[in-house]
Amino acid sequence: MDIQRHMEQALATLRTDGNYRVFAELERQCDAFPRATVHEGEGGTREVTVWCSNDYLGMGQHPVVTERMTEIIRKCGAGAGGTRNISGTNHYHVMLERELADLHGKEAALIFTSGYVSNWASLGTLLSNIPGIIVYSDALNHASMIEGIRHSRCTKRVFRHNDYRHLRELMAADDPAAPKMVAFESVYSMDGDIAPIKEICDVADEFGAITYLDEVHAVGMYGPRGGGVAEREGLMDRLTVIEGTLGKAFGVMGGYITGSATLIDFVRSFSSGFIFTTALPPALAAGATAAIRHLKTSGLERRKHQEAVAKVRAALDRKGIPHMPNPSHIVPVMVGNAAKCKWLSDVLMRDYAIYVQPINYPTVPVGTERLRITPTPLHTDADIRHLAEALSALWSQCALSRAVA
Amino acid sequence: MDIQRHMEQALATLRTDGNYRVFAELERQCDAFPRATVHEGEGGTREVTVWCSNDYLGMGQHPVVTERMTEIIRKCGAGAGGTRNISGTNHYHVMLERELADLHGKEAALIFTSGYVSNWASLGTLLSNIPGIIVYSDALNHASMIEGIRHSRCTKRVFRHNDYRHLRELMAADDPAAPKMVAFESVYSMDGDIAPIKEICDVADEFGAITYLDEVHAVGMYGPRGGGVAEREGLMDRLTVIEGTLGKAFGVMGGYITGSATLIDFVRSFSSGFIFTTALPPALAAGATAAIRHLKTSGLERRKHQEAVAKVRAALDRKGIPHMPNPSHIVPVMVGNAAKCKWLSDVLMRDYAIYVQPINYPTVPVGTERLRITPTPLHTDADIRHLAEALSALWSQCALSRAVA
Repeated sequence: MDIQRHMEQALATLRTDGNYRVFAELERQCDAFPRATVHEGEGGTREVTVWCSNDYLGMGQHPVVTERMTEIIRKCGAGAGGTRNISGTNHYHVMLERELADLHGKEAALIFTSGYVSNWASLGTLLSNIPGIIVYSDALNHASMIEGIRHSRCTKRVFRHNDYRHLRELMAADDPAAPKMVAFESVYSMDGDIAPIKEICDVADEFGAITYLDEVHAVGMYGPRGGGVAEREGLMDRLTVIEGTLGKAFGVMGGYITGSATLIDFVRSFSSGFIFTTALPPALAAGATAAIRHLKTSGLERRKHQEAVAKVRAALDRKGIPHMPNPSHIVPVMVGNAAKCKWLSDVLMRDYAIYVQPINYPTVPVGTERLRITPTPLHTDADIRHLAEALSALWSQCALSRAVA
Repeated sequence: MDIQRHMEQALATLRTDGNYRVFAELERQCDAFPRATVHEGEGGTREVTVWCSNDYLGMGQHPVVTERMTEIIRKCGAGAGGTRNISGTNHYHVMLERELADLHGKEAALIFTSGYVSNWASLGTLLSNIPGIIVYSDALNHASMIEGIRHSRCTKRVFRHNDYRHLRELMAADDPAAPKMVAFESVYSMDGDIAPIKEICDVADEFGAITYLDEVHAVGMYGPRGGGVAEREGLMDRLTVIEGTLGKAFGVMGGYITGSATLIDFVRSFSSGFIFTTALPPALAAGATAAIRHLKTSGLERRKHQEAVAKVRAALDRKGIPHMPNPSHIVPVMVGNAAKCKWLSDVLMRDYAIYVQPINYPTVPVGTERLRITPTPLHTDADIRHLAEALSALWSQCALSRAVA
């Protein structure tokens, strides 16, 4: 078999199906977010407004974060210089872990190099080291959770998305003596819907299962201190593990889990993906700590964020642009066709200086292709008006159906 | 089953076996490397000299790196704000990938959030997407490579460490028509020995196999431009994939692969661990680029590094402290007992202000426990003398055998 040819063919198929990814080359601008410079080859650049960032609150350019990071780089240098065990644990990692445990009302926390790794490594370690455990996984769980579960090779049941009755049926059919875990998310990234956390915890309790909740699209943004949806709903103590990210609303990079001291020590001690990797740079840990502390006391960013989301939805409604209703900050504008979705994105960038990446298969199912719009507290009313007008103009050109008022 | 009790017992077993890890809480000092502050609880701190950092050349505190990072944080902010596909590709990622492709003489490069993820995701993606491929893996390959291979579920053969004759036997016994990959490292982290890259490539060529070389403990340190051992030996063009890290000699964080444009595009397009994760902060990419560019032209750090290694070895020899001979910069001081290794490390820290983490099972086999010493260009002659004298004093106290001159 010719490996090179095999790879070329696989890439050609992606192109034919409209699923080949082209990355927009941005240069973020610290004082002008959500404005960014886009590099277009041959040295050409243009200014665009970013409408698809996961820096949901703009904390990635907040002075409390950037100044703390530059301060710690000057003091402690660039990288950590080693794994957590071999010279890589820094004072700022320890402080960040304390801050995170406090945020979620847990005894302890453990940070990882990314949210992806935190899910993969934690689920992989817990599920492969607890003999006979069965995991019940929401059908729309993130790739990193699926990979962690797959890695463990434990028994897995998939329950229909957010369907706690189906979860109950599956659990009732299994051996009552088997240890069990329910793994799910609070805010789902692509549809922006929110899990019935209380009901899922009730079912888990009924069958003595531990619970693992991914709050990466919620931490910083929901709850009085930014602890996520579980905090907002007063449910944090019902989750065995709360997992989160430092790379979205907290504006930096990295992931974490929080839980009991024993559970955290267990993952710390047995997880290959935690042990054998260089620790986060001290400045990233310090910057993330500053963001978390800021958002624990300041509600301003959360309020303005929700206001911007409501304004975007209202503006789209006025123009009849169809978007999936949901109770979160994610605004999926439905297109339903890979090629049209890519075309819309290209024209928005070229003619309107608006950057929204097309979301196609395999990130979402075929037929549900979309523009995933993420308003931030820093988008102005003029930005919102411009977005709605641009989409409206393209909707006509592209002969896409309008939403019925 | 009581999950909490199961975890407690597993941790108790680690403690009993002397394999429970206690992390030293450091605070790196930018202008004083390899000096660091160690936090000892209750707010107490002390100054120590770090002798086990993987910031091998001290680039983690080099002004060319730290100044570039603070500049880009001020300009572009803290995090990338998204995955590479969804608003997270920054101009500085693209420039870094060009720099890395050039460093290894390849068409293209792809960066990941860590070296661990680069191995896991690249091997996992290549091996699971090339039908029928057989991988030949060195027996001492790093955990991240093993996990990537395991993830792919492809057919795997393990050849005896660095034994290209055994590799040849294994390949000769397999179907000549099956696609094949040889996966190995240049410098092995714990023993510091170096692979016979040429001989392994000869065997791979004989059987039409592609080759995957992990150079994480070599990039920046070997070769006229810091391209690693394969560069030094004029063999870069014989490797299909060269993998490296930005978190050791380059002083920052992150991992990468380099290879043909098609191969890189293939991993970029099909790797879950690349696609579904937030990109590196622009400032990390810019800092790593600065480190690579500096080390492409400056040989000073490499020369002083090798001088320091030679001086440490000579000082240990004069005191009869046994260390494993090898052709690299890693100096494994052999202890051979987990409890003694931990005790030595504790007393070095407490009484001599020397920090060397004990390396016990499962990082190394039982009976080969060691202090893994990593000299840097910034350790002084006085530091080296103090280290040798401290070890000599403890060797007597601990009744450990001396090396025979």
